[in-house]
Amino acid sequence: MRQTVALDRIDHIAIPAADVSSAVEWYRGLFRCDVVYQDGTWALLRFGNVRLAIVVPEQHPPHLGFVSPEAETFGPLVPHRDGTRSIYVTDPAGNAVEILEPYSEGGEGDV
Amino acid sequence: MRQTVALDRIDHIAIPAADVSSAVEWYRGLFRCDVVYQDGTWALLRFGNVRLAIVVPEQHPPHLGFVSPEAETFGPLVPHRDGTRSIYVTDPAGNAVEILEPYSEGGEGDV
Repeated sequence: MRQTVALDRIDHIAIPAADVSSAVEWYRGLFRCDVVYQDGTWALLRFGNVRLAIVVPEQHPPHLGFVSPEAETFGPLVPHRDGTRSIYVTDPAGNAVEILEPYSEGGEGDV
Repeated sequence: MRQTVALDRIDHIAIPAADVSSAVEWYRGLFRCDVVYQDGTWALLRFGNVRLAIVVPEQHPPHLGFVSPEAETFGPLVPHRDGTRSIYVTDPAGNAVEILEPYSEGGEGDV
């Protein structure tokens, strides 16, 4: 009964921008979203259903982020400053995918 | 009082894959998601919070899709087979962004 099982969520999307600041201003100007974090190399915007990261591609690969209780089966998880742990894999087409172990949010959109 | 305003939602994400079928199998194998549509040039997966399109990049550009009541201010909207109308723009970093006019869903994930 697949329909009765809750579907997994996409935790975040990360898209590339050489100039993070101008990309943040563009998205904020067009859409209602909150800026959770911003520095010169990346920013995190919160939308109603998912978070959008804007990343300098040299430092952070564009990717999709998923939470999975089986994250550890993909290999050693790397801890991040925010306390989350994850591993990067690639899908068959070569797109980068971050798989995070489940984490408790200090608040919606907290990372 | 920005905090009291509902945030906008990301309608869908479209990522590239030369082989749509193998990408669909990979995501379905790892995550609980429903396949809403699939053919040789693109597929649409429904996750709990957002839809993920997998597209042959030659036919459909990878992009983010947003719904905006001001879609028409970006230029002439193009009608699609599913009844939605949208326009493609690019963010300052060159990422493709589809802006759809608000549409009524025949069911969650219907396109």
